[in-house]
Amino acid sequence: MANPKKADLSLLKLDYNNLTSEALGENGLSEADLADLKDPLTLAIKELKTKRDQGLLPYLDLPNDESLVNSLKKLSQKGRKKYTDVLVLGIGGSALGTSALFTALKPLNYNALPDKKRLWPRLWVADNIDPEGFSALLDRLDPPTTLVNVISKSGSTAETMSQFMIAFDWLAKSLGKTALVDHLLVTTDPETGVLRKIVNDLNLKSLTVPPGVGGRFSVLSAVGLAPLALIGVDIEGLLAGAKSAVAAGFNSWSTNKAALFAGLNWSLASKKGRGILVFTPYADSLAKVADWFCQLWNESLGKAHKLDGSANTVSQTATKALGVTDQHSQLQTWMEGPADKTVLFLETLNFKSQKNIPKLFKNQEALAYLGGQSLGQLLSSELKGTSRALTENGRPNFTLTLPQVAAKEVGYLVQTLETATVLSGVLYGVDPLDQPGVELGKKFTYGLMGRPGFTEFLDRYNQGLSVKKKFIVS
Amino acid sequence: MANPKKADLSLLKLDYNNLTSEALGENGLSEADLADLKDPLTLAIKELKTKRDQGLLPYLDLPNDESLVNSLKKLSQKGRKKYTDVLVLGIGGSALGTSALFTALKPLNYNALPDKKRLWPRLWVADNIDPEGFSALLDRLDPPTTLVNVISKSGSTAETMSQFMIAFDWLAKSLGKTALVDHLLVTTDPETGVLRKIVNDLNLKSLTVPPGVGGRFSVLSAVGLAPLALIGVDIEGLLAGAKSAVAAGFNSWSTNKAALFAGLNWSLASKKGRGILVFTPYADSLAKVADWFCQLWNESLGKAHKLDGSANTVSQTATKALGVTDQHSQLQTWMEGPADKTVLFLETLNFKSQKNIPKLFKNQEALAYLGGQSLGQLLSSELKGTSRALTENGRPNFTLTLPQVAAKEVGYLVQTLETATVLSGVLYGVDPLDQPGVELGKKFTYGLMGRPGFTEFLDRYNQGLSVKKKFIVS
Repeated sequence: MANPKKADLSLLKLDYNNLTSEALGENGLSEADLADLKDPLTLAIKELKTKRDQGLLPYLDLPNDESLVNSLKKLSQKGRKKYTDVLVLGIGGSALGTSALFTALKPLNYNALPDKKRLWPRLWVADNIDPEGFSALLDRLDPPTTLVNVISKSGSTAETMSQFMIAFDWLAKSLGKTALVDHLLVTTDPETGVLRKIVNDLNLKSLTVPPGVGGRFSVLSAVGLAPLALIGVDIEGLLAGAKSAVAAGFNSWSTNKAALFAGLNWSLASKKGRGILVFTPYADSLAKVADWFCQLWNESLGKAHKLDGSANTVSQTATKALGVTDQHSQLQTWMEGPADKTVLFLETLNFKSQKNIPKLFKNQEALAYLGGQSLGQLLSSELKGTSRALTENGRPNFTLTLPQVAAKEVGYLVQTLETATVLSGVLYGVDPLDQPGVELGKKFTYGLMGRPGFTEFLDRYNQGLSVKKKFIVS
Repeated sequence: MANPKKADLSLLKLDYNNLTSEALGENGLSEADLADLKDPLTLAIKELKTKRDQGLLPYLDLPNDESLVNSLKKLSQKGRKKYTDVLVLGIGGSALGTSALFTALKPLNYNALPDKKRLWPRLWVADNIDPEGFSALLDRLDPPTTLVNVISKSGSTAETMSQFMIAFDWLAKSLGKTALVDHLLVTTDPETGVLRKIVNDLNLKSLTVPPGVGGRFSVLSAVGLAPLALIGVDIEGLLAGAKSAVAAGFNSWSTNKAALFAGLNWSLASKKGRGILVFTPYADSLAKVADWFCQLWNESLGKAHKLDGSANTVSQTATKALGVTDQHSQLQTWMEGPADKTVLFLETLNFKSQKNIPKLFKNQEALAYLGGQSLGQLLSSELKGTSRALTENGRPNFTLTLPQVAAKEVGYLVQTLETATVLSGVLYGVDPLDQPGVELGKKFTYGLMGRPGFTEFLDRYNQGLSVKKKFIVS
């Protein structure tokens, strides 16, 4: 069966047949369940518009920042001549989007390609502080041809700032304190925070995390666009796709992919006990979109309280998988495990390269049928077979299809999922833009690391330790 | 606080204070809940022994296969001179364990190290059939110095056999059909299956997947040990650690780490609604142990039916995370999201290398405290801070500690988790060794790919398609 032509398809297709009772019987959403979505989704879309008009959703305006695009294009043309490597120091929302789009839009072995085939600098995203991992990474890089892009909105993220201090020292020892200025690019709040202060004191090059745009919604700001531009990603294509998605996010509920994504999952979580959303790309290039999405969904919706102060008792935890690999590790539990999962397949219809299976072992019935087909056909058949098996077993699953993994399509996808997340916040009645639950752990960490002002948390930590010693087996 | 000396610690420490009501109040397991574990765990350990004596648990005997070790040591000494690269073709249980132990026991940038520092061949594990990914991988390799290790127990896994046919052709075109024999190593069933037939027909070198050892329990068989030996991993150390764990798995329940791991999670899932186990290593080297564990746990326990035929209504889905990275993407939902999670921290007390944070920016209060400390100290404080925050919020969490990430410790860890899984099967009353839920999807895939004998599944697939077309938005 031939793949559809790219021109026949929009930038993104949503097929949710296998979430409905027509496909799943009592495990699926009935016509009434679907009709029940109309009012809350219509209200949520209206609220999206109101909040945007009030300036409360600046992530929706990121695709319109033409002056940023122009300055990043200049930066990337200069950087291309000057740097062999770009090293991003960031964590969470400062890293996940960049990694996702890097993996999607450059060849999978990009960093290993010879210069002639690569044409742009390599990109490394340091999103952990493991000493072995960070040492191994720095060992591969050469300060005179490396640009370090440190990204922290607050400027005080302990992990990123530790990396920054190490990298600063590494650059300074090799290049001297004057020359290192050409090897540092700081992306942080335009006005506040210690990193902005350092930018001003040392006259460093800097970019801005736009006010009101949280880390997990920042991939299409300078946070993601700068490193992506520096390696030659088509950032205009990304933003063009995103712009289409912004507009589509205000469509009427039944033709609005972001709204349906939000509403269907909300309905499955609240009416069908589907508390786990398994985000499963069937393409190596899309693998890290799953990581990015898991932060977006979980940090936005995993809230103890609703906006009205009452307890929030329903939400959905997103987990990641990768097809076809994880079919061989997770399918058993998707098929037969607790009936708490919805599987989301993310597929592409066209790969950047193909690989044909040669016609070998023609006498072996168990192999011969493979010969003459392609790996892409097999991957696609695996997805279809898995989806059909889940459906026959009453397990809800749905599919997002990209005609190809290219800038415009990926820009459309991320912006659609961001709006789906904000609309979900309205449906659950929680604030999708805050993350109050992450502060306490940071305070204990500061206390343990001896940061001034956090002694009480060190004391509280030690107090907790003193009462528990019993339940340890060595 | 100084790290404890390695000698002070066993190979693995289990600290479950933060699962108990002493730490968590009503969200924790009470003294009575813990006492309730005694009888079922004692019975489960007894059944482990009975089944082993009956020869039904051959994974427990893998650490005793000295003749395999000797032959692999010879193989690796020969291979070291002959090959620059080892390419594993396998998926699921044929890949995950090898990847996990490779990442744990070799430097993190191993494949990128220069020959002088690397000393052994590079290792590549091809566990997907994405055409872009597989092409990118083959492009990096040179047939004359590559050994391809194809691993499939049945010999008919469509993904692995497609890779095999492509790689066979790739070797044959470069080396000719005679010489390629030296570049292929086949790991499959000792007697049955098409791959064994090909081994016999073409006189290929081969190793054995031991009968009765399923993929997810096979890392310490030739499946994992051969590629690991070929890159110089201390396989004797691995097996020595595993042997200790086999013995410890028969200890009395209250001092038996495998049994407590099983029992505590069972209790949390069945009494406290904790249906998600978040497996979270705090070390890059241990990251892939989480992937391996998720298959082990989910494929073993995610069963629709108990052994007595009744419906299985409780089990736990394992998901993976990586500290400190995923603290910045998942902590919000661990803290405040649905009360359905238990977080397992996996930590090491000693990294193979350290990285100190230089004393810079001394006038900046938000940074100065970091100077003079190490990334390892920060990572450890993050884990402690996160654990304490979860605990204060009534969220169950527990910690497995390795004194160091070395062969003996890692062997002990994987064997302990395998036994914990088998004991869990007894507690839930399911068969932890089968995977009946994965067959249907395979049959649809065969049908879609035109494999003889599977036409009915193609028809059934198309029938499913014909009734659904409604719920698509483009």
